[in-house]
Amino acid sequence: MVTAGVIRTPPADPLANRLACLFVEFRRLPTETRPDVVVVERVLFQTNARTAMGVGQASGLALVAAVEAGCQVVQYSPNEVKQAVTGYGSASKDQVQRMVQALLHLPEPPRPPDVADALALAMCHLTGTGLRAAVAAAGGAS
Amino acid sequence: MVTAGVIRTPPADPLANRLACLFVEFRRLPTETRPDVVVVERVLFQTNARTAMGVGQASGLALVAAVEAGCQVVQYSPNEVKQAVTGYGSASKDQVQRMVQALLHLPEPPRPPDVADALALAMCHLTGTGLRAAVAAAGGAS
Repeated sequence: MVTAGVIRTPPADPLANRLACLFVEFRRLPTETRPDVVVVERVLFQTNARTAMGVGQASGLALVAAVEAGCQVVQYSPNEVKQAVTGYGSASKDQVQRMVQALLHLPEPPRPPDVADALALAMCHLTGTGLRAAVAAAGGAS
Repeated sequence: MVTAGVIRTPPADPLANRLACLFVEFRRLPTETRPDVVVVERVLFQTNARTAMGVGQASGLALVAAVEAGCQVVQYSPNEVKQAVTGYGSASKDQVQRMVQALLHLPEPPRPPDVADALALAMCHLTGTGLRAAVAAAGGAS
């Protein structure tokens, strides 16, 4: 099962409170959805410098919540995700949205783009997992 | 009471596990030291890009642990801290270490520099708090 959604926190709240609010949700999600694996984007510095630190702080909380829930944790870089979903490591947000829509046979592109990114992350992992399983089944290195 | 120390996690462990390990310590500390306030450095992008994301992720966990413990949380930028302790916003790590040693009458500079940074953060807050209290006592804006 693929679950995708956006967690929102009150924009006017202090940063620490918004992160705490996010962490509550991150802890709730694995008990609700019982995931086999949690896939978190590897945050890099090519992204918008103004927002990257907040994204980094949030990703750290996602990683800790996943570890505490006993989930397997995997990370991929944005380029790996775009490559896996669109075949092109520098694809635009719009291209990722359209490919996610096509691959999952959705009636319209997932919005906001963050939802498409989350679905793309999941598909990036599933593609790699399928490939590794096929290689292992064929007697190659897993 | 000022408490300073460095939390270390196994360098060979996966990032998610190291962050989870850090979070356990961050949660333990407030129950042990019962702080009036938790002061966390505001991570900026002027720092080493290779390590800044890890620092950002760790700082997010510190903020959440403080909020969850019901502590007041305050953040200062590295420049505010250096300005408060050395009188110079672009002071070197060495200058911060020496000033912290002098101000706290320590027999030698706090090592590693991270400990000096932590003490400097605490002093930055106490200086500002003292100033704000004095201004308030004098009938000015707090």
